[in-house]
Amino acid sequence: MTPPHDSDRSHLEGLIARIVESYHAHRHTQHLDATFLPSRARTVEVIEVMRRIVFPGFFDDRRLTGDTISYHIGDMLLELRTLLYEQVRAALRYTENQVERGRGDACDHCDEKAKDITEAFLERIPEIRRLLATDVAASFDGDPAASNTDETIFCYPGVDAIFTYRVAHELYNLGVPLVPRMMTEYAHNETGIDIHPGAQIGESFFIDHGTGVVIGETCVIGKRVKLYQGVTLGALSTKGGQAWRGRKRHPTIEDDVTIYANAIILGGETVIGEGCVVNGSVFITRSVPPHHTVGIKEPELTLRSRPRKKVAR
Amino acid sequence: MTPPHDSDRSHLEGLIARIVESYHAHRHTQHLDATFLPSRARTVEVIEVMRRIVFPGFFDDRRLTGDTISYHIGDMLLELRTLLYEQVRAALRYTENQVERGRGDACDHCDEKAKDITEAFLERIPEIRRLLATDVAASFDGDPAASNTDETIFCYPGVDAIFTYRVAHELYNLGVPLVPRMMTEYAHNETGIDIHPGAQIGESFFIDHGTGVVIGETCVIGKRVKLYQGVTLGALSTKGGQAWRGRKRHPTIEDDVTIYANAIILGGETVIGEGCVVNGSVFITRSVPPHHTVGIKEPELTLRSRPRKKVAR
Amino acid sequence: MTPPHDSDRSHLEGLIARIVESYHAHRHTQHLDATFLPSRARTVEVIEVMRRIVFPGFFDDRRLTGDTISYHIGDMLLELRTLLYEQVRAALRYTENQVERGRGDACDHCDEKAKDITEAFLERIPEIRRLLATDVAASFDGDPAASNTDETIFCYPGVDAIFTYRVAHELYNLGVPLVPRMMTEYAHNETGIDIHPGAQIGESFFIDHGTGVVIGETCVIGKRVKLYQGVTLGALSTKGGQAWRGRKRHPTIEDDVTIYANAIILGGETVIGEGCVVNGSVFITRSVPPHHTVGIKEPELTLRSRPRKKVAR
Amino acid sequence: MTPPHDSDRSHLEGLIARIVESYHAHRHTQHLDATFLPSRARTVEVIEVMRRIVFPGFFDDRRLTGDTISYHIGDMLLELRTLLYEQVRAALRYTENQVERGRGDACDHCDEKAKDITEAFLERIPEIRRLLATDVAASFDGDPAASNTDETIFCYPGVDAIFTYRVAHELYNLGVPLVPRMMTEYAHNETGIDIHPGAQIGESFFIDHGTGVVIGETCVIGKRVKLYQGVTLGALSTKGGQAWRGRKRHPTIEDDVTIYANAIILGGETVIGEGCVVNGSVFITRSVPPHHTVGIKEPELTLRSRPRKKVAR
Amino acid sequence: MTPPHDSDRSHLEGLIARIVESYHAHRHTQHLDATFLPSRARTVEVIEVMRRIVFPGFFDDRRLTGDTISYHIGDMLLELRTLLYEQVRAALRYTENQVERGRGDACDHCDEKAKDITEAFLERIPEIRRLLATDVAASFDGDPAASNTDETIFCYPGVDAIFTYRVAHELYNLGVPLVPRMMTEYAHNETGIDIHPGAQIGESFFIDHGTGVVIGETCVIGKRVKLYQGVTLGALSTKGGQAWRGRKRHPTIEDDVTIYANAIILGGETVIGEGCVVNGSVFITRSVPPHHTVGIKEPELTLRSRPRKKVAR
Amino acid sequence: MTPPHDSDRSHLEGLIARIVESYHAHRHTQHLDATFLPSRARTVEVIEVMRRIVFPGFFDDRRLTGDTISYHIGDMLLELRTLLYEQVRAALRYTENQVERGRGDACDHCDEKAKDITEAFLERIPEIRRLLATDVAASFDGDPAASNTDETIFCYPGVDAIFTYRVAHELYNLGVPLVPRMMTEYAHNETGIDIHPGAQIGESFFIDHGTGVVIGETCVIGKRVKLYQGVTLGALSTKGGQAWRGRKRHPTIEDDVTIYANAIILGGETVIGEGCVVNGSVFITRSVPPHHTVGIKEPELTLRSRPRKKVAR
Repeated sequence: MTPPHDSDRSHLEGLIARIVESYHAHRHTQHLDATFLPSRARTVEVIEVMRRIVFPGFFDDRRLTGDTISYHIGDMLLELRTLLYEQVRAALRYTENQVERGRGDACDHCDEKAKDITEAFLERIPEIRRLLATDVAASFDGDPAASNTDETIFCYPGVDAIFTYRVAHELYNLGVPLVPRMMTEYAHNETGIDIHPGAQIGESFFIDHGTGVVIGETCVIGKRVKLYQGVTLGALSTKGGQAWRGRKRHPTIEDDVTIYANAIILGGETVIGEGCVVNGSVFITRSVPPHHTVGIKEPELTLRSRPRKKVAR
Repeated sequence: MTPPHDSDRSHLEGLIARIVESYHAHRHTQHLDATFLPSRARTVEVIEVMRRIVFPGFFDDRRLTGDTISYHIGDMLLELRTLLYEQVRAALRYTENQVERGRGDACDHCDEKAKDITEAFLERIPEIRRLLATDVAASFDGDPAASNTDETIFCYPGVDAIFTYRVAHELYNLGVPLVPRMMTEYAHNETGIDIHPGAQIGESFFIDHGTGVVIGETCVIGKRVKLYQGVTLGALSTKGGQAWRGRKRHPTIEDDVTIYANAIILGGETVIGEGCVVNGSVFITRSVPPHHTVGIKEPELTLRSRPRKKVAR
Repeated sequence: MTPPHDSDRSHLEGLIARIVESYHAHRHTQHLDATFLPSRARTVEVIEVMRRIVFPGFFDDRRLTGDTISYHIGDMLLELRTLLYEQVRAALRYTENQVERGRGDACDHCDEKAKDITEAFLERIPEIRRLLATDVAASFDGDPAASNTDETIFCYPGVDAIFTYRVAHELYNLGVPLVPRMMTEYAHNETGIDIHPGAQIGESFFIDHGTGVVIGETCVIGKRVKLYQGVTLGALSTKGGQAWRGRKRHPTIEDDVTIYANAIILGGETVIGEGCVVNGSVFITRSVPPHHTVGIKEPELTLRSRPRKKVAR
Repeated sequence: MTPPHDSDRSHLEGLIARIVESYHAHRHTQHLDATFLPSRARTVEVIEVMRRIVFPGFFDDRRLTGDTISYHIGDMLLELRTLLYEQVRAALRYTENQVERGRGDACDHCDEKAKDITEAFLERIPEIRRLLATDVAASFDGDPAASNTDETIFCYPGVDAIFTYRVAHELYNLGVPLVPRMMTEYAHNETGIDIHPGAQIGESFFIDHGTGVVIGETCVIGKRVKLYQGVTLGALSTKGGQAWRGRKRHPTIEDDVTIYANAIILGGETVIGEGCVVNGSVFITRSVPPHHTVGIKEPELTLRSRPRKKVAR
Repeated sequence: MTPPHDSDRSHLEGLIARIVESYHAHRHTQHLDATFLPSRARTVEVIEVMRRIVFPGFFDDRRLTGDTISYHIGDMLLELRTLLYEQVRAALRYTENQVERGRGDACDHCDEKAKDITEAFLERIPEIRRLLATDVAASFDGDPAASNTDETIFCYPGVDAIFTYRVAHELYNLGVPLVPRMMTEYAHNETGIDIHPGAQIGESFFIDHGTGVVIGETCVIGKRVKLYQGVTLGALSTKGGQAWRGRKRHPTIEDDVTIYANAIILGGETVIGEGCVVNGSVFITRSVPPHHTVGIKEPELTLRSRPRKKVAR
Repeated sequence: MTPPHDSDRSHLEGLIARIVESYHAHRHTQHLDATFLPSRARTVEVIEVMRRIVFPGFFDDRRLTGDTISYHIGDMLLELRTLLYEQVRAALRYTENQVERGRGDACDHCDEKAKDITEAFLERIPEIRRLLATDVAASFDGDPAASNTDETIFCYPGVDAIFTYRVAHELYNLGVPLVPRMMTEYAHNETGIDIHPGAQIGESFFIDHGTGVVIGETCVIGKRVKLYQGVTLGALSTKGGQAWRGRKRHPTIEDDVTIYANAIILGGETVIGEGCVVNGSVFITRSVPPHHTVGIKEPELTLRSRPRKKVAR
């Protein structure tokens, strides 16, 4: 409980000065005198309210009944509208200020645009529900270990990640900066599944286990596609860096494809044709015609005999 | 701070109606008029109380002494019993209602069964501790970076995931639905290690680093087995989906096997024999006889010279 | 709400006795009558205060201005000093007691050493900021999906993990036990990226997506290196276990190397030369000369035609 | 951080035994092996939800609009119904068990009765609002320091205490045990105003400042009555104790009476007639006819000259 | 856990409609479609930050040292400025909207004025500290039960209430609506001492015990005045209600007066002269010349002999 | 959301300097460079743990049974011992440092003494329970509004205040500085009842309603005494201030006395004899012989007729 040490005030002042100096030296790693970024905590709240609207009764601490559900949903929609509007507005203002630093926070057209985007998003909720219903059905059909669809909604990280992606993707389509990415990073943190909100993914999508899955920004994925843990749908090379911005860098996966664990598929022109199966650990940079199975030749393995070790049991 | 927009009441009513409609259209993605699911927060509490019973003194904020430990453990056991009983009862009632929707919540034999299961689980705690003691010893012996066993209990995600699995596996064996899976998904979320509670795993088990490890429901794993990050012990194909329920779909790993990072071993009839070493990134769908090392032939790699890039430093 | 069951007091007493007994039987899985371990919650606080000192304005709930920032930083430095001193002291005392159990908590030279280490760490903050500025620039240059450097500081798990590593590495260099490892395990839990605090990593380091990355204790990594998700820089074999302690077991990666997803590079004598590119899923245990690309020969893949399945859409 | 002292286990055991013994010796100060009491925390929640239903927009963290208010109120009513039902049921079960210890928790007619009471209470909300509207108007009319009625709803402890009383009084009338008293004790704790839920109080009631006000169980208070801090409307003597149960022990205050600070009015047959004014500090145990002012004769005061003290300023 | 009852949807709808109707009927007890009120939680934060600025080291969880205190105070001042500005602005906007409902939230001159008020308040902090130093000294000098001044700052409700009053009074003088009253009601709730922020109170003021003390809006109190619990300095009659707004309604207490418990002093023209002592329970509505003691004649008491009761001990 | 104003850095610096200056000018209202005070939050924890030990089952969220209660009590005693030891030690160190500022925190005999005091306190718990059992019985016997003793333990502020006093009084007797006062101030804040921990109070003590009760440090109160709200047992005059320290300044109340609301009894030589009844609002500074009733002569009241006001109803 004793103070750590006699504070050498002038020494401390020197250190503070050097740190503050480093704020001037490396300006891109400080955010002083600047507009607020959207709030991470509030963005998570948006996701959690959406979850309870989209899957009513699963994550609530009150029993909900069909008779009275419209009061509950109505109230949550109003809450969602307020929360979402604020985050969208903050993101628009932030972007505006990026372009022209020091404009101050006021931005009337940001506010107007945030209002329109919020309304447009709310309209999409029934469609989001429709898509997720197909995803949930796919998660149950695809996993013999699942007892029923309730279990997949309640426990499966894959369903969690796809839910978050579907919400973030709508906001991405509506032109909201930053917030969609914050949402999918939240899901990435929780599930280990990293889906860029810009990816286009068809209905009945299922990811099993999921840790390590990466789905890039310009991926196009068809219907009834199934992925396992560790699958990467990525860019061939990013050595060009920012020069590649906006171009299709990630593969196209057609309908009814299954991709097993740790497979890596790279490149914007790579197309995995309809009905293909990609085996685990496969590394692909070229297209595969429809209705093929792609795998590693098994004889590649080496088998070397080992001496029997004596183990004390 | 202004309200986002003049609310168009009739418009909002229309939207709410459409959302409520979608609850009728896609019934498997709502949980209205239904029994409560077990609570996620309470299930996590069960795990955390168990952790403090099983590893006393590591995660407590009070110093515990051998002299008086029985008061502390006694009190925590009573707390555990109450918590666990409630979650088990909720899971049994939920499953009962799944079979026969609308039966209401009362279920006398559920309560009786929950009581018996809770008692049986408590009896298993000394055995769980015995098994975990072997796992902790293995984690220290197997990792030169570990300074002592305390460090592995306190910091290692592998020990954390195995602890949770051992607890969930006992409940799985006792026939508890949903709750064991919720427990291992909690560990999956925290550690990136996904062990199905149905897997059978022998003593002295160690997972190093662990992110991306998947161990399927019907795996059988012997003693002194060691896994690295990204290892999958999975099913060959799940195209059959729910038709595969209950059959052995995942491999058998015999005693004293080591499996390096990202290796994938698939299939219910695949057996990795005693004392084998499976190298990293290997993909296996057939059995390996005891005492062999399995690897990828190194010459498979291609080596292509690159121009020296000039880098401004 | 009824009590679970008539408690059989003598039965309960028996169970408690058996559990307490198991504390004597397996002494390495209890921590009774022992010095406190450093606190996990407080160690996380150290990281979070550091984050706000190193990236001012990104994670604060108040707008910070350049004019007055020195008050804020000064106050946070004082808080950091107190927090860090306590954790370092606890770790030193713990280690001291490991050597000689039962010495009690007092340890005057621990306190003195903790004071010196804390001061030395504070001095390093400007340098930590300088290194991170290069990392952040690399993360933006390397990812076409990033809109600006703010986004990478705010959202990228790779930047988060490298930040935590750079803090932990300084404490590792100053000889602090346990705490650096607790820090990087916290980042591992949050991001799925597991960097040992002992690794040596040059400036402008970037990890994209990151889930499943493992970087071992004795790795040496040059400047401008870029890793993707699932990359392992590990030890060849750890069968020797604790006998390998302190020896170089992990590879050396020279400047300007890029390593794609799921590649595995093992061994203390393995050197990936300057300017190399390692393709995804490659498994390497031998050195690669500078300026080469290493990959799997693509023809290794098997392509097998599949019958067209009829799918009801 | 050292443990307080070598624990003398047998000594501690002796102490515990003596404490447990005292649980047997003084049975009315323990509550072991007994039905749960209603929850204090949940009862406070009932009050807080009611507050937001009854005074919408004052205590919410979201802006509410007239257009959409019915969703919000509908949802809060459903929440209130669940919360209140549980507390009422617990109180009925508790009372039932008081009569016949050891009956266990089940009590079907308690559940039925709790349901009826809850419904009946909800029906009374519009009337509670009507009464409170008169109270709020009275609080503004009666206090020149109040700027508007908003301020009295938002800040005045008198309004807070009367609100809580009006809610508790309805439950008291419906025969709910314990819970109404818990509610008014909560208000007592917050405001220093102690109104027994059994008191009968007419509309347009105002208490200014309020600390120390006590209004007994069998008080009858008319319309437009105004009280100041420290006023007691109590029983003449309670030496008879429990023998007085159920009899009118507290005074009747007719319409349009004002009672100033610290006045004490005692006795079940004491009636303060319509339009009276009772001055501060008056002590009354007999009735006062209508339209009189009651006070202490001012000459009763003694005035004694004091020497001028020199004060160092 | 069963739902309380089959919800009769149409019945519920009727009830909701009636409640919403009552929002229209009694418009002054709802706050729909209206500007936000200042936040109670944030106003409490302002008080708590001020407490730590004004009494540094008493309520902090970190040891503060004279050497480095300016960083801490500087940082807290910046936080206070942000917090206070927001609450003052909200109060000004609210008041503006009171006058002209429906103007919306924007109010440029409110923002300007809030900024000026905030700055002016900050300037007053050293003077607030000077006054409180005299109050604290008075609390120690006046109470033989106090061991030192630290104890009175740390434990005495009187010091707590005076501190809050001195802060609120500055804001009252600067013309801030609502917020000062919210502050003193917070202190009233905590201490039972109700001081209107408009009262004028000289230095070295002390209130002992304090529960039930009321000091009205237009009181004028000199230096070195001491009050005991239950003292009222109030208005003679408030029957006129709002007609009395703005006039001096409460007494003047000159320097060096002591007023004992439960004394009531009423009226705007009542002056208690310098150096007077007012005894407990006295009721005064007329002025008292300087240097007198005012009391109740003791013979007023009645003494009636009682029969000796037999008490079973 | 815009920053309040362009910060004038030099202006701010001036203000900070003036505030810091005021810390030097008024040294008794800062606590810099000083030993920690005991923690208020931790002292409240001591009280709350004691409450659950002394009234088991009333305030717990788990059902406790007689069979297993010793584990629960044992564990809580161990927790209490740790908590109390730390607060007592802090208070002793603080007092030590008061005497000799700058001695640093170490104080070996403080630690020793804290240990002895803690043990001595624990021994007193059965006696505290015995006393409280008599108080609880008195609270039920004395209040016709109470349904049973459970209700008084659960709801009555009088029982709450007496419980806290009895705990604090033991610590006061054991010579602990500051902490007992912090405890009774906590109860004062919660209940409005201010009992100095130094007062001596016999068994079967009851305070009804209680707001405004003050019981001074040197009061001596017999058995079966009953007080109502607003009663003061105080000092005659405290003009002498600190000169009165340690002398008997407060009255003696003998066995079986009842004192009604707002009565004030002052002076260290004032004795209210056995079996007396003191009526409400009475002001006494002289002794009363046993077995008398003391009251105000009722004819003192003035009755003045008032014109009938017309009230619009």
